[in-house]
Amino acid sequence: MATRLSDVAARAGVSVKTVSNVINDYPHITARTRAKVEAAIAELDYTPNVSARSLRKGRSDFIALAVPEMASPYFAELGAAISRAAKKRGITVLIDQTEGEAAAEKLVLDGMRGQLIDGIIFSPITTAPARITSADTAKPLVLLGERHPGGTFDHVAVDSVQASFDATMHLVSIGRRRIAAIGVGGGAGTGSVRRKGYRKALKAAGLALDPALEVGGPGYHREDGAASMRELLALPEPPDAVFCFNDLMAIGALRALTDAGLSAPKDVAVIGFDDIEDGRYHSPSLTTISADKEWLAENAVALLLDRIAGTGEADRRDLTVPYTLTIRESTGG
Amino acid sequence: MATRLSDVAARAGVSVKTVSNVINDYPHITARTRAKVEAAIAELDYTPNVSARSLRKGRSDFIALAVPEMASPYFAELGAAISRAAKKRGITVLIDQTEGEAAAEKLVLDGMRGQLIDGIIFSPITTAPARITSADTAKPLVLLGERHPGGTFDHVAVDSVQASFDATMHLVSIGRRRIAAIGVGGGAGTGSVRRKGYRKALKAAGLALDPALEVGGPGYHREDGAASMRELLALPEPPDAVFCFNDLMAIGALRALTDAGLSAPKDVAVIGFDDIEDGRYHSPSLTTISADKEWLAENAVALLLDRIAGTGEADRRDLTVPYTLTIRESTGG
Repeated sequence: MATRLSDVAARAGVSVKTVSNVINDYPHITARTRAKVEAAIAELDYTPNVSARSLRKGRSDFIALAVPEMASPYFAELGAAISRAAKKRGITVLIDQTEGEAAAEKLVLDGMRGQLIDGIIFSPITTAPARITSADTAKPLVLLGERHPGGTFDHVAVDSVQASFDATMHLVSIGRRRIAAIGVGGGAGTGSVRRKGYRKALKAAGLALDPALEVGGPGYHREDGAASMRELLALPEPPDAVFCFNDLMAIGALRALTDAGLSAPKDVAVIGFDDIEDGRYHSPSLTTISADKEWLAENAVALLLDRIAGTGEADRRDLTVPYTLTIRESTGG
Repeated sequence: MATRLSDVAARAGVSVKTVSNVINDYPHITARTRAKVEAAIAELDYTPNVSARSLRKGRSDFIALAVPEMASPYFAELGAAISRAAKKRGITVLIDQTEGEAAAEKLVLDGMRGQLIDGIIFSPITTAPARITSADTAKPLVLLGERHPGGTFDHVAVDSVQASFDATMHLVSIGRRRIAAIGVGGGAGTGSVRRKGYRKALKAAGLALDPALEVGGPGYHREDGAASMRELLALPEPPDAVFCFNDLMAIGALRALTDAGLSAPKDVAVIGFDDIEDGRYHSPSLTTISADKEWLAENAVALLLDRIAGTGEADRRDLTVPYTLTIRESTGG
């Protein structure tokens, strides 16, 4: 049997109500009584029933993070960062994998049913932005991801157009002239946003846009990147550089190059997006756009906790995550 | 405002109690009343308050998965598999990252505070097996991981000694004679279990045990594998093969080989453990022990749901996850 409030009361020689008052930090308790109760709690290794405490303060100190896919290293690393950022504030994060399914995303927007979760950090895929902005969620909610500017919720995202512009310009800067993009048709909207930055860079560099060089989607996994690279290598005039819209696809693309007896950056320079840890250990190591996941995590958690506490600003906030271009071997770094 | 029971009642022209009876599928409701209420629910896009329903049936249809580390690809992939296995049964999985911290693991054993979680699948790191077996958990619980045979809980794990024996014997079978092990001092007990299999194989092959070839730990990340490989390469007589106790360390080890101007399998053959997706796309692709994560997920979820429903077997169950040796380029496959 777990230790109960009544066990603590018996050990301390006080009433259950008095133990409860000490745990809940009520005033008007003598130092002597408090000491007795705290000693009994320590001796019995008693854990206060936090649900009861939560009811009093109206909070559980649990928040949820709803992401499409746990096994994607980007979301796994982001989830770990958000979990750490919350823990520093005494909050436990529970992660829900929606797989981008409409029903699972609706469950999130509806507040995840229960009384246990104080609020939600949500990276939606399937649910339309219009629906999200108009949703009447049961819980405070912070949105992640570049598809959802505006609307009614606090929002944290990378400036993906600018970052994609920078990624493409890096390939220009190392002398590449036939630059492909992998992932244009996918990522639930990410593709079109990043393509915008890619096209902007081609234009700025005076390079012609070749529709044959815009490939990929809807999948954003390693095998999708490998398939897209094979498609590009089969062109009459293959590219000399590729901007992959995430690191996973870039790793798949690098593998397809190896399988074709080619190498990066000699034959084709490759840049990714996300800076997942695996890119750093790959051979060749992967040049990428490195969004500051710790910054994202800290700020998403802080925004949500402000909303939960009712101390947030009246207007919704829209925060832009800082990023850097990290040059490694796959583009000759 | 979210649609409320009272809105549905008003639209249907019935009492709130009647709507509640329809939602909860109580008998003695006329077909006509049921149809009116269901039409109102559909028109208003009403989502029943499932917490109220859960109270009735005593369940929330949420379970928790508590793992040390989300950003570790093994746990991320396992979490995704468990989430999928649960979803097929109408259950949502919330994932809790304990970071192996004692306080976080205690929170798990204490039932995660609240009323929302029906049960827990737990991969402990810090909490001593003895404490776990004696813990009086508030919730049904299934344990994962090779450190925890016996005890009072259902348990699902790979036979790590046998798998490590097989991994090492594979290196013997390709003619290697100076076989190192990376990770012996870590992984919260995993190290000693896998070392047992490694040593057993050396003995079976008639190879002498060289303590200088048993390195690594406590960390089990890419950088730890890279550091251990550098240590091995600095030996007067470096190894011609390495068994890394997980794929992450193997990927780090491969990177250290590349940095030293060496390659696998020519100079040093490398085998990992876990079959994370990244190993398949690495150059060279990684030979590994491939535990059946889908099998593990299906069975862990089924065991837990049986306990929650009270339909489990009287005795605790101890399930062994099937695995295969997957031979790829890093050992010459």
